[in-house]
Amino acid sequence: MKKVINQPADFVDETMEGIVAAYGDRVHFLDGDRRVLVSGYPSQKGKVGIVTAGGSGHLPLFLGYVGAGMVDACAVGNVFASPAYTKMASAIRAVDSGAGVLCLYGNYGGDKMNFQQAIEDCEFDDIRCRSVLACDDVASSPRETAEKRRGVAGILYAYKCAGAAAGQMRSLDEVAAVAEKAVANTRTMGVALTPCIVPEAGRPTFAIADDEIEIGMGIHGEQGVETTKIKSAKEIAEILVGRILDDYDYSGSEVAVLVNGLGGTPLMELYILNMEVQMLLEEKGIKAYRTFVGNYCTAIDMTGASVTLMKLDDELKELLDAPCDTPALKI
Amino acid sequence: MKKVINQPADFVDETMEGIVAAYGDRVHFLDGDRRVLVSGYPSQKGKVGIVTAGGSGHLPLFLGYVGAGMVDACAVGNVFASPAYTKMASAIRAVDSGAGVLCLYGNYGGDKMNFQQAIEDCEFDDIRCRSVLACDDVASSPRETAEKRRGVAGILYAYKCAGAAAGQMRSLDEVAAVAEKAVANTRTMGVALTPCIVPEAGRPTFAIADDEIEIGMGIHGEQGVETTKIKSAKEIAEILVGRILDDYDYSGSEVAVLVNGLGGTPLMELYILNMEVQMLLEEKGIKAYRTFVGNYCTAIDMTGASVTLMKLDDELKELLDAPCDTPALKI
Repeated sequence: MKKVINQPADFVDETMEGIVAAYGDRVHFLDGDRRVLVSGYPSQKGKVGIVTAGGSGHLPLFLGYVGAGMVDACAVGNVFASPAYTKMASAIRAVDSGAGVLCLYGNYGGDKMNFQQAIEDCEFDDIRCRSVLACDDVASSPRETAEKRRGVAGILYAYKCAGAAAGQMRSLDEVAAVAEKAVANTRTMGVALTPCIVPEAGRPTFAIADDEIEIGMGIHGEQGVETTKIKSAKEIAEILVGRILDDYDYSGSEVAVLVNGLGGTPLMELYILNMEVQMLLEEKGIKAYRTFVGNYCTAIDMTGASVTLMKLDDELKELLDAPCDTPALKI
Repeated sequence: MKKVINQPADFVDETMEGIVAAYGDRVHFLDGDRRVLVSGYPSQKGKVGIVTAGGSGHLPLFLGYVGAGMVDACAVGNVFASPAYTKMASAIRAVDSGAGVLCLYGNYGGDKMNFQQAIEDCEFDDIRCRSVLACDDVASSPRETAEKRRGVAGILYAYKCAGAAAGQMRSLDEVAAVAEKAVANTRTMGVALTPCIVPEAGRPTFAIADDEIEIGMGIHGEQGVETTKIKSAKEIAEILVGRILDDYDYSGSEVAVLVNGLGGTPLMELYILNMEVQMLLEEKGIKAYRTFVGNYCTAIDMTGASVTLMKLDDELKELLDAPCDTPALKI
């Protein structure tokens, strides 16, 4: 394990310290708690708060999206582990300004259970909460049981659109409806080339041969749908886009495209994959309205990539284009 | 070699296609030439043009900084190889609007020779040119022969400050003076953990033991100043910052800090390194005015990081904070 770290046990706390050291003018810890990050941008009275939470190891997700126009607060746990519900509850309380709070997070057992407990606690204090869960990973469950799907990179769009809707002072139900639409319109499919190494474990999360890749691998190393010999960027694009289009009808639509790196993949490869993805979309008559290429949702140092499409309508286009200012995304 | 690519020989051209596929509303090829990228933002008549060029493999450098408020055009060569001088000349001609062109690039033999030829050609057509070379890599030559130092991540600051000065409609000599000040005030020191693999070669650029790191490695795999056993983030920060401060007196200054990843290093590690860097600066009474953490200048998939400091005065602060809108940096 070759990493720029100190003690593996300090990996998360020191990452958090480094974020605040870089962006202390824009984000801060909640009451000194290094596991809860809050936007430093003043929130308008009556704006719906947006809270997210999840395990560490996915930077810039989730912490990088705390700021103006996206997420107001974020609680994180250890690597790939849900934070305690008390941290989520603190985040919810910190950002409620009377209009209620949208809890927007990925569809994972631990996060669900802990958010439910946090919301119960906060509702006891008369803070109205709604939950919307991202479940964009096509590989993680068949269409018939789509409610079991995991949330991966596509949550970026839900943050962006819900954050913009909240900024327009829409009500909690309206902001939740935007997040639900973003989630419903979004599909992701990924491929892993190499596993990641969790610092405290010190060894790869799974084994894969030198000439093999895994289609549909989850961002915590969950098993994918197929292990196959290494393929060209063109073939990988065909598989990823093909599975997305099999699952959801994007034909004739305008879409937002996200070609996401898993942490260890260089930008050059992501652009080559993007070229292939865009050619496939063009062939299918699907129009890329806006494209994001980069590391938006990672699995520590895993190499590989994911492709995400979100179907757009006029409302989502306007919300996607609205200004935001966070450490990881500025529009 | 496990990479998301097609034919290794197409690596650069397809990367370029993918960039234009993503940001075609903001950048475009010059007359269909896939090795010359030009800003799509309309340039004001009389604004000094800013051109850069260099070998491929360092994304988002150089291409990602083409846009409003930074670089107007960029020519790239093959991986780690200078582009032909004719491409540089085309880029210069494309962005001259009568006020002349600043050629701002890294201090490498091939780039120097080719830019000199390109500038000769353009001056023959009465385009006034000035050259400023970034040479921020402390490891690449001792202080007595600092003119031999290579340009690495610190060129980001020169792009940003010179681009902002050009946007204020300053003259060519004034914009060049800003770039020279940015270069003079900037020092970088890096460390590599693992080598990179150039697709066409298909093998690592150098060998390094599993428990060793190389201090001062160049961004093309040039030999560093010391190969040593793997160290903690704290120790690495002490070495990098120590060598920078030995070379240039930043005491009592305000600085811009760049903690840069070399392509394969996850963001978590860069933030941990940033935490350590900021603590060291604080101890020395050096104030971080603005901090950048991320992949700004890479060596394909090399793992490791570099630290860059630029000493600020009121002028550089204002120019650093000025708005810019490029694929890789938005302020």
